[in-house]
Amino acid sequence: MNAYPTLRIVLDWGTTSFRALLVEADGRVADRIESQDGIQSVPKDGFATVLQRAIAPWRERYGVLPVYAAGMIGSRNGWVEMPYVATPADAGSLAAQVRRMSLPDGGSITFVPGLTDPSAYPFPDVMRGEETQLVGFGLSEDRTVVLPGTHAKWARIEGGTIQRFQTFVTGEIFGTLARHSFLAKVARQPETPDWQAFARGIAVVRDDPRPASLLGHLFAVRTGWLAGRVDPAEMTDMLSGIVVASEFEDARTLGWFSEGDTVAVVGDDDLVEVYRRTGEAFGLQIIMGDEDCAVRGCLAIAAMAEETRGAA
Amino acid sequence: MNAYPTLRIVLDWGTTSFRALLVEADGRVADRIESQDGIQSVPKDGFATVLQRAIAPWRERYGVLPVYAAGMIGSRNGWVEMPYVATPADAGSLAAQVRRMSLPDGGSITFVPGLTDPSAYPFPDVMRGEETQLVGFGLSEDRTVVLPGTHAKWARIEGGTIQRFQTFVTGEIFGTLARHSFLAKVARQPETPDWQAFARGIAVVRDDPRPASLLGHLFAVRTGWLAGRVDPAEMTDMLSGIVVASEFEDARTLGWFSEGDTVAVVGDDDLVEVYRRTGEAFGLQIIMGDEDCAVRGCLAIAAMAEETRGAA
Repeated sequence: MNAYPTLRIVLDWGTTSFRALLVEADGRVADRIESQDGIQSVPKDGFATVLQRAIAPWRERYGVLPVYAAGMIGSRNGWVEMPYVATPADAGSLAAQVRRMSLPDGGSITFVPGLTDPSAYPFPDVMRGEETQLVGFGLSEDRTVVLPGTHAKWARIEGGTIQRFQTFVTGEIFGTLARHSFLAKVARQPETPDWQAFARGIAVVRDDPRPASLLGHLFAVRTGWLAGRVDPAEMTDMLSGIVVASEFEDARTLGWFSEGDTVAVVGDDDLVEVYRRTGEAFGLQIIMGDEDCAVRGCLAIAAMAEETRGAA
Repeated sequence: MNAYPTLRIVLDWGTTSFRALLVEADGRVADRIESQDGIQSVPKDGFATVLQRAIAPWRERYGVLPVYAAGMIGSRNGWVEMPYVATPADAGSLAAQVRRMSLPDGGSITFVPGLTDPSAYPFPDVMRGEETQLVGFGLSEDRTVVLPGTHAKWARIEGGTIQRFQTFVTGEIFGTLARHSFLAKVARQPETPDWQAFARGIAVVRDDPRPASLLGHLFAVRTGWLAGRVDPAEMTDMLSGIVVASEFEDARTLGWFSEGDTVAVVGDDDLVEVYRRTGEAFGLQIIMGDEDCAVRGCLAIAAMAEETRGAA
């Protein structure tokens, strides 16, 4: 019997980092443990050992606690390859596909499945982890939700389900260009975001009367510098504005929003501010999800899975 | 008096490599010298020394020969910063802006200016080096010419002049993604191009009934792999197809061509075949420029400048 029945452990175990959150049933974070033991640094049969060693302090204090995990730890290169649940989907359809595994210490870990949109072109689109953010944000209102990230997702919530979604590789394009492209040669990275430079990047895309062309617009970072109209300290944020505005331009063209719509931005890092500003520059009403949507969604899916298990 | 009045030296001095060509007046290459002494490895006051040391064997054999240079060696980070001639421009307007400098050994080097399109959005577009390829290809026929590269150029020739041009950062996007993105984690690079995988990448872009979205289409490389429909050995060439086809899609939308048009592809490396195939996939008649367009263009501009000088 567990002396702390309201405590759970939720993992955020990514490719390059490990993070465990000790949370109350309502999602409140009581403690956290972080390390560099990302998925890529752990041998295929070493995940249980790394996990148990990391959370040993909590085990000593609270006994064995249930562990929940979503995202890339449940992928082909992670601990187990979880299936993808097809859209339209809700918390119940995700809960029906969780997988619970025993741990050597007598506890258990429950993996949340990913989500796939089989209607996507040209191949089914996929997400792992963002589905918990969507559930945590809530599926009760019909709404378009954008989830910024390396592979940003636009999702449509309708009738209490995640109807469809689409990935844009915005973060990856920005990151690789900022670090490795011609830009890196002269750009100086400011210590805090230069929102004015960012807004100039947005304007390059949004105010071009011609159709969007990311491959063309990106060169403005260089031609602006050559023309003496963009300072090296502005280049990185201007690049960011061009890339993120291109995502919004594409999303609008592809029907994800129209000017004046209300769109939700859900995430837990600095990118939510980047997306909020871009959304407003495109004439959207932006509502912001709470930072802990992922944790609350993970707990909600797990709780639903346990009710089903209990009822069975 | 020079004992070899028909011989010239044309430099192809780029950021990471040095190449000197010994050419006849008609552009035929008699000899070449290459080294790793790219612009970035030479101190600002060291260019003459590096050049004279490199071409010493020719000096010993043929005496002092005139040297011509276009491209990045005449840029802000190179030997001298040459001006940009504004479009519309022809060989004569480029010749009017060459700059001849004496070399310590008694010879001279002549730098060709770059080209700028002041009508470009949002800043004047620029090229350095490609203007010699355009002149070498010939400006007598009204024609759209595409010059593949890290920063690919689409140029419009009309009435014997280069009317306007636009840069697409296609090569840079492909290169940084192929080397540094999520792709690099599972992609296996084939020894020879997999043209079938390349064609699949083109088709992802061209056959999408919705408007083009590079940020969306790129994710197909990953979702195709996850769906078991793209092999790791196909990923790099499929990525290439997606990026280059996006350039063609954008170029068509921006009015650079219509289906059925004849378009010239001018370059001197493997990319010309990549662009030829993409052009044909987009319904174009492709004519290929000779490999030595840059050398012949450089010589033509220099000869015109010398005639003017002689006449003055």
